[in-house]
Amino acid sequence: MDLNEVDGGICASGGISASGIWAGFRRNTSKRDLALVVADDVCTAAGVFTQNRFCAAPVTVSREHVANARARAIVLNSGNANAATGMPGLGTARLAAELVARELACDADDVLVASTGVIGVIVDPELFEEGIPKAASALSRDGGHDAALAIMTTDTRPKQSAVEFEHDGVTYHVGGMVKGSGMIMPNMATMLAVITTDASMSPDAARTVLKTAVDLSFNKVTVDSDSSTNDSCFLLATGAAGGATGEVGDALTDAVQEAVSYVCTSLARQVAADGEGSTKLVTVNVRGAASDADADLCARAIANSPLVKTAVAGHDANWGRVAAAAGKSGAVFDQHDVDIDILEIPVCRKGLALAFDEDEALKRFEADDIVIDVDLGAGQCSTTIWTCDLTHDYISINADYRS
Amino acid sequence: MDLNEVDGGICASGGISASGIWAGFRRNTSKRDLALVVADDVCTAAGVFTQNRFCAAPVTVSREHVANARARAIVLNSGNANAATGMPGLGTARLAAELVARELACDADDVLVASTGVIGVIVDPELFEEGIPKAASALSRDGGHDAALAIMTTDTRPKQSAVEFEHDGVTYHVGGMVKGSGMIMPNMATMLAVITTDASMSPDAARTVLKTAVDLSFNKVTVDSDSSTNDSCFLLATGAAGGATGEVGDALTDAVQEAVSYVCTSLARQVAADGEGSTKLVTVNVRGAASDADADLCARAIANSPLVKTAVAGHDANWGRVAAAAGKSGAVFDQHDVDIDILEIPVCRKGLALAFDEDEALKRFEADDIVIDVDLGAGQCSTTIWTCDLTHDYISINADYRS
Repeated sequence: MDLNEVDGGICASGGISASGIWAGFRRNTSKRDLALVVADDVCTAAGVFTQNRFCAAPVTVSREHVANARARAIVLNSGNANAATGMPGLGTARLAAELVARELACDADDVLVASTGVIGVIVDPELFEEGIPKAASALSRDGGHDAALAIMTTDTRPKQSAVEFEHDGVTYHVGGMVKGSGMIMPNMATMLAVITTDASMSPDAARTVLKTAVDLSFNKVTVDSDSSTNDSCFLLATGAAGGATGEVGDALTDAVQEAVSYVCTSLARQVAADGEGSTKLVTVNVRGAASDADADLCARAIANSPLVKTAVAGHDANWGRVAAAAGKSGAVFDQHDVDIDILEIPVCRKGLALAFDEDEALKRFEADDIVIDVDLGAGQCSTTIWTCDLTHDYISINADYRS
Repeated sequence: MDLNEVDGGICASGGISASGIWAGFRRNTSKRDLALVVADDVCTAAGVFTQNRFCAAPVTVSREHVANARARAIVLNSGNANAATGMPGLGTARLAAELVARELACDADDVLVASTGVIGVIVDPELFEEGIPKAASALSRDGGHDAALAIMTTDTRPKQSAVEFEHDGVTYHVGGMVKGSGMIMPNMATMLAVITTDASMSPDAARTVLKTAVDLSFNKVTVDSDSSTNDSCFLLATGAAGGATGEVGDALTDAVQEAVSYVCTSLARQVAADGEGSTKLVTVNVRGAASDADADLCARAIANSPLVKTAVAGHDANWGRVAAAAGKSGAVFDQHDVDIDILEIPVCRKGLALAFDEDEALKRFEADDIVIDVDLGAGQCSTTIWTCDLTHDYISINADYRS
């Protein structure tokens, strides 16, 4: 299938309007902090949420509201996570849904809510009361970029992706946006993501497509092994492109799956590359594992290792740290079967050091994309995990976050 | 039982001599890099080793040599880990044992070997051939400090502890030294540790005492969640104090256990406080867990969280990060039952933010010891884990380690 990249982010899909405005969640008036994503009509929706036991009020509300697999709109704010805020926080999350419903003349149950920012600080409900009407009046078919800006926290850039493809003579779109650069870990990597498509999908098809794509993409990203109280990923399928309604296992759903997985993978790589303080995207490929679980354990251990991540920051092909991370991961293998390549330079074969050209390695470390390949020699399973290097700026960003 | 702290480190125990010299494993001639620890006679010995699947040649050799629960000496070098060095590395580790045996006129099988430093670089056997005779001639009853210096890598200070106690009219000693500041994680936290006692112990008693003490101390330290290929902890029980031979479960062994656990805990806290780039020792106490495993999972997740560790570096009582780490840990609890105190300031009760005096918190963060208390409200189990803050210097040390 041909996927063509297009502009527009979430608004690339027909039937979607969006906006992003400053509503006062952040002191900086030049930083947009409230996003609204609206479908022309109530449509099929799916959601995937954080597994963290401390889950935020908006996650509780969105889980309830998406249970019927329908939604009209998503309201997202940055600057305050509305987490660990108890009954008042839950009330505010419900109020946000109601305020959007009032603007759109729909049921509050059809509005999904997401928040990101500092934990444990009560949100002022007035910010939603005043901000949501403004966000609603700013809605536009070109609002995807503003929305992507409004959900950023420590992100250094907005993260969007969109594609177009044809199926059975109909042109479809999938678009997406994500925010997330710190507190990024398995299950799930994103703090907040919105994926849209103008394909029509059944509830089961939408859920399956979203879950499959998230497992292949956001759940394969790790920045600092910390997962959030607020992680939420939503899919809206407007049906505005026309055509049939995709059901689980049919050809249309397979095509949508390919497009949604592509967009989510692009967004996931953008998240890893924009890890707090990072200068490089690090791709860890593990193959030759005895099981999928072992491949995942091993790749995650390498990707989460501060010693590996600082070595990358220091342009150091220190494969011993890769080996040590693999060895502690719990994956089963024999050290005398392990091969390691860094930036396509063979540095370890059968568990032993290979002489390599350190100058050539230094030259290759100038790249923005650093690839580490590990073959455990223990089986046929493989996986890829994305992460970033660990730099001084990570410390600066996180030591001073609230000040 | 009264434990009195005394000087001397490993040499506080009767029947122990030690030395630490420069042998050329490191280029810097002012840095000692070869340590020798010798008992007057072959004595009871025990060892605990890394669980990392990439294990170094000296670990393989020491596992074999300590299997009979006897040893006369331990030779340790810093500057080269002799890991991922294949058959040549194994040959060099065996050679080191043989060279020490020749100096002491004992069996090579009674010599234990340990190495720490860079992974994947072949060790020049001549360094042992030339260094070991020098280390042997430097042996002294006062050599504990030199030995502790010689095993240091990125440690900023030598780490020693020793105590004296009486039992049944006999005065006993336990002494210890450890190196380790990076690549420190559960199972086990130390890269290299030597514990000595002049009590006489049966092989089973020595193994039990060492294993119990390590689980309570070194295995409760985490600096950066990376564990090493070389971690080794040895116990030598010389019997030089006279008295009975301790058997598993008897009163003498209980007394020795208390002393060894005390020394190991002191050393473990020194390791955490000297974590690479750290400025503070962080103690994470978790109580109210549903099981010991949950307490450990939760405390480790908090202690390993880069966001928690950078918050401590930034003097930020950001308890939301503590809550998020607990929530992702896998420990079972209800967020509405959780209490969190930072530096004895209640910051979260029943999962909700408490107003607290931020100026007072900032003042308390000036301390060298930072204590985080979490009550999960889910049961009766508890644990303590030690770690350190995460600072710019960690990055500097580890990005430039080989350059």
